[in-house]
Amino acid sequence: MRLHTAPDHGVVGAVATAIAGAGGIVTAIDVAESSHERLVVDVTCSAGDAEHAQELQEVAAAVPGVEVYRTSDRVFLLHIGGKIEVGSKVPLRNRDDLSMAYTPGVGRVCMALYENPEDVRRLTIKGNSVAVVTDGSAVLGLGNIGPGAALPVMEGKAALFKRFADIDAWPICLDTQDTDEIVRAVELIAPGFGGINLEDIAAPRCFEIERRLRESLDIPVFHDDQHGTAIVVLAALTNALRVVGKQLDQARVVVAGAGAAGTAIVTLMLAAGVGDVIVCDKDGALAADDETLSEAMSELASRTNRERRRGSLHDVLHGADVFVGVSAPGVLQAEWIADMADDAVVFALANPDPEVDPAEASKYAAVVASGRSDYPNQINNVLAFPGVFRGLLDARASNVTIEMMLRAAEAIAHVVHDDELNPSFIIPTVFHPDVPGAVAAAIKG
Amino acid sequence: MRLHTAPDHGVVGAVATAIAGAGGIVTAIDVAESSHERLVVDVTCSAGDAEHAQELQEVAAAVPGVEVYRTSDRVFLLHIGGKIEVGSKVPLRNRDDLSMAYTPGVGRVCMALYENPEDVRRLTIKGNSVAVVTDGSAVLGLGNIGPGAALPVMEGKAALFKRFADIDAWPICLDTQDTDEIVRAVELIAPGFGGINLEDIAAPRCFEIERRLRESLDIPVFHDDQHGTAIVVLAALTNALRVVGKQLDQARVVVAGAGAAGTAIVTLMLAAGVGDVIVCDKDGALAADDETLSEAMSELASRTNRERRRGSLHDVLHGADVFVGVSAPGVLQAEWIADMADDAVVFALANPDPEVDPAEASKYAAVVASGRSDYPNQINNVLAFPGVFRGLLDARASNVTIEMMLRAAEAIAHVVHDDELNPSFIIPTVFHPDVPGAVAAAIKG
Repeated sequence: MRLHTAPDHGVVGAVATAIAGAGGIVTAIDVAESSHERLVVDVTCSAGDAEHAQELQEVAAAVPGVEVYRTSDRVFLLHIGGKIEVGSKVPLRNRDDLSMAYTPGVGRVCMALYENPEDVRRLTIKGNSVAVVTDGSAVLGLGNIGPGAALPVMEGKAALFKRFADIDAWPICLDTQDTDEIVRAVELIAPGFGGINLEDIAAPRCFEIERRLRESLDIPVFHDDQHGTAIVVLAALTNALRVVGKQLDQARVVVAGAGAAGTAIVTLMLAAGVGDVIVCDKDGALAADDETLSEAMSELASRTNRERRRGSLHDVLHGADVFVGVSAPGVLQAEWIADMADDAVVFALANPDPEVDPAEASKYAAVVASGRSDYPNQINNVLAFPGVFRGLLDARASNVTIEMMLRAAEAIAHVVHDDELNPSFIIPTVFHPDVPGAVAAAIKG
Repeated sequence: MRLHTAPDHGVVGAVATAIAGAGGIVTAIDVAESSHERLVVDVTCSAGDAEHAQELQEVAAAVPGVEVYRTSDRVFLLHIGGKIEVGSKVPLRNRDDLSMAYTPGVGRVCMALYENPEDVRRLTIKGNSVAVVTDGSAVLGLGNIGPGAALPVMEGKAALFKRFADIDAWPICLDTQDTDEIVRAVELIAPGFGGINLEDIAAPRCFEIERRLRESLDIPVFHDDQHGTAIVVLAALTNALRVVGKQLDQARVVVAGAGAAGTAIVTLMLAAGVGDVIVCDKDGALAADDETLSEAMSELASRTNRERRRGSLHDVLHGADVFVGVSAPGVLQAEWIADMADDAVVFALANPDPEVDPAEASKYAAVVASGRSDYPNQINNVLAFPGVFRGLLDARASNVTIEMMLRAAEAIAHVVHDDELNPSFIIPTVFHPDVPGAVAAAIKG
């Protein structure tokens, strides 16, 4: 915040004290201008959230002799002008350069590609580019905010693609939420891309979109909210069970949430050989003989809940080895974990607020993971998607298969060595330098 | 080319002599390996075209003791992996960086954009990004080669956008040549872009596509093959008439070619006040009372050829001040220029081979321009499109108007000062540092 204050350096000290007293962390104070009439002071401080930031501003303004002239948020400052850019990989210094990168030289390359279309991936960006496609219908935990407001997330994703796997990804924010139109738009733009990353598209629409695109396109299509999450959850589950000494094929898992992520997690777990899975939505356990279920739910029920158990989440948690939540804040009461099997594993992945407070859950569970970066064991898609696409592009794959995803999960799990493995470290940090390469190698098989 | 030769350095000299004798320019000879049995020699040389390159390879192979192991083309080498890339403008070194550029911090920016959509251009790439959209139906002079083979041109264009105007452009190669589908695809991807550059889309489809997109979108849509060309032609014409001391409003212009470029050139010339324009297609002059014309041709004829003259190109050239060709190689015989008015101006812009050889045309005309970089006065769209979009993006324009284009042409013309102006310098070089800024300022008005 930029303050105008009385020309008294004691006032500046009082501001710092007031902010600290309200729980803010002051990281810098710069006097930008000083005159006999006033000081102009820039105060940089960290707040817990937007409300807290507002509170800090109010305590600063309450210091006598202080006027808050303007506040800015470093997250917003970072976003001005966008987070990604296009760069030329070729020199364009003189006419000779132009004549190779553009006309007339480029014409020879075009004709060669016309005659040998299989060279497009080698001689163009198609070999290293991914479209990050959204309709803005299910952005983070924010819901249906539309394609324009979703753009900062897609740009962030593109920046991560570059940072972790040197992939050139570009956001495509679609001005429609109609399934047919989304499918057709992606089919139409596909020639310029080597892969399609679907992002933040609401269920159940996302299932049909992905299925149809996989059928029609000759490049891989991967809905990260489904499969990226599923890969990382399976990796974390593999290591959590290693910690508690249980076998995957004997584990009983309860999944709360039957949306995009839940469905993909269940599918990948079953492919990995998990003993039994019960899925709960907000009305309780899904069972195959329940005729009130929707088509998507009924399909999910047919592959899960072998004993066709009915009841609330609390009911079916009795005796379960693992809870995986991809649902809503607070749906799991920490004390219910005591009713699970010994050495329970709890993944509370709702964002930004988990199904149960991780600290509370730790009182009852042997291993706890969440989506939050301020607790151990963060389940973060960044562990999967860069390496997945790196592997797909390198292999010039036309499809991503469930076998690839199983291998990717195993690769992430094995980045954590036996001697590092413990209840607070079941999953590597996203900055572990081995992760993208290990995942890419696993995808290539 | 990489040669395997007998271990005799005399052989290398003989190769250099042979290549030079066949008209090749040897720029480097590297001995990559040397042993008692053989030498491995890399010879770098320039050839006039692909046929000439083949000929040079054959003369090298004909030297006794020489085997051509492999040849590579530096234009192809330049294209390996594509010509553009995506870069992150924000640091991603640690969790704090991640939490600002991606979740959870990015969520605050998304919600701010949801509430204030007018901030999308300020806080995302939309403010500086352009989609370079093609269907691959009219690529350079190569024709309908499809979206994949067109990609190198679109990448080159994106690289030029960056080089000359610091704009982030991304190629969108559409897998359709259906007008409705192209229009809808561009509408659907528009939320992420601040402008649409249509490229290499065949006439007459391109006219309808542009018109419909201009009506439906709130970002500017600019078909460069039409308007970029028209702007540069008008700039060159303005200066050519300054050279010969004629007035625009009294000039009689004959345009050969009634496609995308020809139509746009005519429209802009008429808006600039050119006295009279006659358009010829391959069947001769278009006249408003000719009922055999197609709808597009008839519309063009209704705005041109005031005297409704009929006849061949040669017929209507009699007495004309200016010839502008955007048609096909060789349609203009040099000696016809003698039948034009004194101090004739000839723009022969067909690519890669012009309507008339510029050297031949210079025998009869006072000023000659072409699309070729190996003659003076190259008419090159690179003079226009980067500055045009720079101006449009900076102004957050929702449309590009004919007044903007007229101002852009004037700005390009005026980069050539009076004391520089002469028959061989009517248009600035594309590397003139003032051009993009002058065009952008003119667009902003």
